[in-house]
Amino acid sequence: MNTTAVKAYGTEAAEAQLDQLDINRREVTPHDVEIDILYCGVCHSDLHTARNEWHFTVYPCVPGHEIVGKVVKVGDHVSKFKVGDVVGVGCMVDSCRECEYCKEDQEQYCEKGNIQTYNSPDKFLGTQTFGGYSEKIVVDENFVLRIPDNLDPAATAPLLCAGITTYSPLRHWNVGPGKKVGIVGIGGLGHMGIKIAKAMGAHVVAFTTSESKFNEAKRLGADEVVLSKDEKQMEAYRGKLHFILDAVSAQHDINAYLSLLRVDGSLALVGAPEHPLPVAAFSVIMGRKSFAGSMIGGIAETQEMLDFCGEHNITADIEMIDIQEINTAYDRLVKGDVKYRFVIDMASLKA
Amino acid sequence: MNTTAVKAYGTEAAEAQLDQLDINRREVTPHDVEIDILYCGVCHSDLHTARNEWHFTVYPCVPGHEIVGKVVKVGDHVSKFKVGDVVGVGCMVDSCRECEYCKEDQEQYCEKGNIQTYNSPDKFLGTQTFGGYSEKIVVDENFVLRIPDNLDPAATAPLLCAGITTYSPLRHWNVGPGKKVGIVGIGGLGHMGIKIAKAMGAHVVAFTTSESKFNEAKRLGADEVVLSKDEKQMEAYRGKLHFILDAVSAQHDINAYLSLLRVDGSLALVGAPEHPLPVAAFSVIMGRKSFAGSMIGGIAETQEMLDFCGEHNITADIEMIDIQEINTAYDRLVKGDVKYRFVIDMASLKA
Repeated sequence: MNTTAVKAYGTEAAEAQLDQLDINRREVTPHDVEIDILYCGVCHSDLHTARNEWHFTVYPCVPGHEIVGKVVKVGDHVSKFKVGDVVGVGCMVDSCRECEYCKEDQEQYCEKGNIQTYNSPDKFLGTQTFGGYSEKIVVDENFVLRIPDNLDPAATAPLLCAGITTYSPLRHWNVGPGKKVGIVGIGGLGHMGIKIAKAMGAHVVAFTTSESKFNEAKRLGADEVVLSKDEKQMEAYRGKLHFILDAVSAQHDINAYLSLLRVDGSLALVGAPEHPLPVAAFSVIMGRKSFAGSMIGGIAETQEMLDFCGEHNITADIEMIDIQEINTAYDRLVKGDVKYRFVIDMASLKA
Repeated sequence: MNTTAVKAYGTEAAEAQLDQLDINRREVTPHDVEIDILYCGVCHSDLHTARNEWHFTVYPCVPGHEIVGKVVKVGDHVSKFKVGDVVGVGCMVDSCRECEYCKEDQEQYCEKGNIQTYNSPDKFLGTQTFGGYSEKIVVDENFVLRIPDNLDPAATAPLLCAGITTYSPLRHWNVGPGKKVGIVGIGGLGHMGIKIAKAMGAHVVAFTTSESKFNEAKRLGADEVVLSKDEKQMEAYRGKLHFILDAVSAQHDINAYLSLLRVDGSLALVGAPEHPLPVAAFSVIMGRKSFAGSMIGGIAETQEMLDFCGEHNITADIEMIDIQEINTAYDRLVKGDVKYRFVIDMASLKA
């Protein structure tokens, strides 16, 4: 198969810094779209994978799954996109397309396991898939998204992961007018959760461990803000919330939040704390509550989310960086020192 | 308020054995039904409460909330029952009747807390409520259930708690034809879960830690039985179950069972292990699964369950005891040595 070498940024080992390297991209096959990458968001998963913190990284590793770019070439049978379109690519670039979940547009839960944008086996080239920290990417048109014209392309990049990761559970658990929704953690995911839940018409209660984030949470759209370490503030919300989106990746007390749910309420975890979270039997038995989780969203739902964000003028709050700053950005990410998403200006890679 | 002294069996302290004592029952008020108790099931909660293992017992304590008896007197405004009717009383004898959950027939989740059949404040007498280990009980007709004629009254008693505790979540999570349902633990609750899930039309997979229960599980109606400590047997069910009813009160690995659920599947706990159960983030995130719980059911739903059991000829498998054997029965209950529910023949109290 013909390939083209392109510049990328990645790492050869868990302990190594990210640095420039060359990777190959396949020539477009009939259903492929070749994309010149303009912007790529920096997700915490990028860092976990680069540093092999989930113990399944294959090196070299080129992270990046919040990709926005411009179509520069299309395969003969591509019908959804044309050269010049501004498009996005998220966490997946393929799936089996045959299992019941794929047929239900839930490729994120593909029975055989979908092909992730990076660190998955690349069936075309025999290597691993390489992500968006690169000049170009070639993706089957069925896994490419349309970006609404009115949205800033750079600030839209994080929607491809942080956006859909919060939109999908908010939709799944029927968040909307008349519903009181808690958003726990105001970071990359949480700040999108607040914006999207508010746009869906819910009454949004943000929970944070830091009083300094109160004004920020309100600016993002929260109707109320609660200091989660203040038991008295927490107590006032006991049994009041229809749904909680929990975007915290650190260990934290799930039972304290379950107690805030109404009867039949669910808490959906979208962060991924390293150690199991202790859940008391009575926390779920009293009030028939659910401790649930959710993972990104399907391709059709990702498009729906992008269109929704276009309609409501929602993008991420970002800090733009050059690719050469990625290692510093990772260090700041670990400290939570970003409001709220780094986005790489990929022009810096070409310079 | 006029009262009548009746014989009962109860305890004066956590460490004391249960023994005979006298309690007072109120005269029927206009909406009350006076019931001569024929049979009372022995629930694990009786033991937990008698021994103050949940740390909120007020003594003296008379347990028993799986009551079947005969109506001997009715108040002036009672319209649902007449003298001679065979009736049941379960875990609740009243609730606020005003909150949104009561209005939705979900008295089990009453906002103000419902009045439990024993060990709750008795608004008429100023004592605690006293349960079914007694000659008679007086209950508002709205918390009294009709017992189907075709069911054996003794074997029906356990339906008032064990039956509704399993029926309600099976109904809530839409168990029925085409659904594969796991029942974990084959004891007082689990054996009812198997019978009811099967009668609802589901394909029932029972999980047990003991190979000796395989034939029993099949006799009760399980289509398949899995030895839960055999990883290979467990692996064969990975991602296969729509719903799991977890009736285990001992500590156990919830993650092993969550992995058996299909996408969007729920595990509902109805047992109450003492210590919190560690749940891994990925156990719920991958496949959008829920770790949930459920507590008995509302009064209308309890009647629905009894009618369902009447229609399908379902009762509990019981071992009948005299009230004088209750302390030995408790000791055997702790060891799990009962198939599957002790029921007290209350005639023994009158002897």
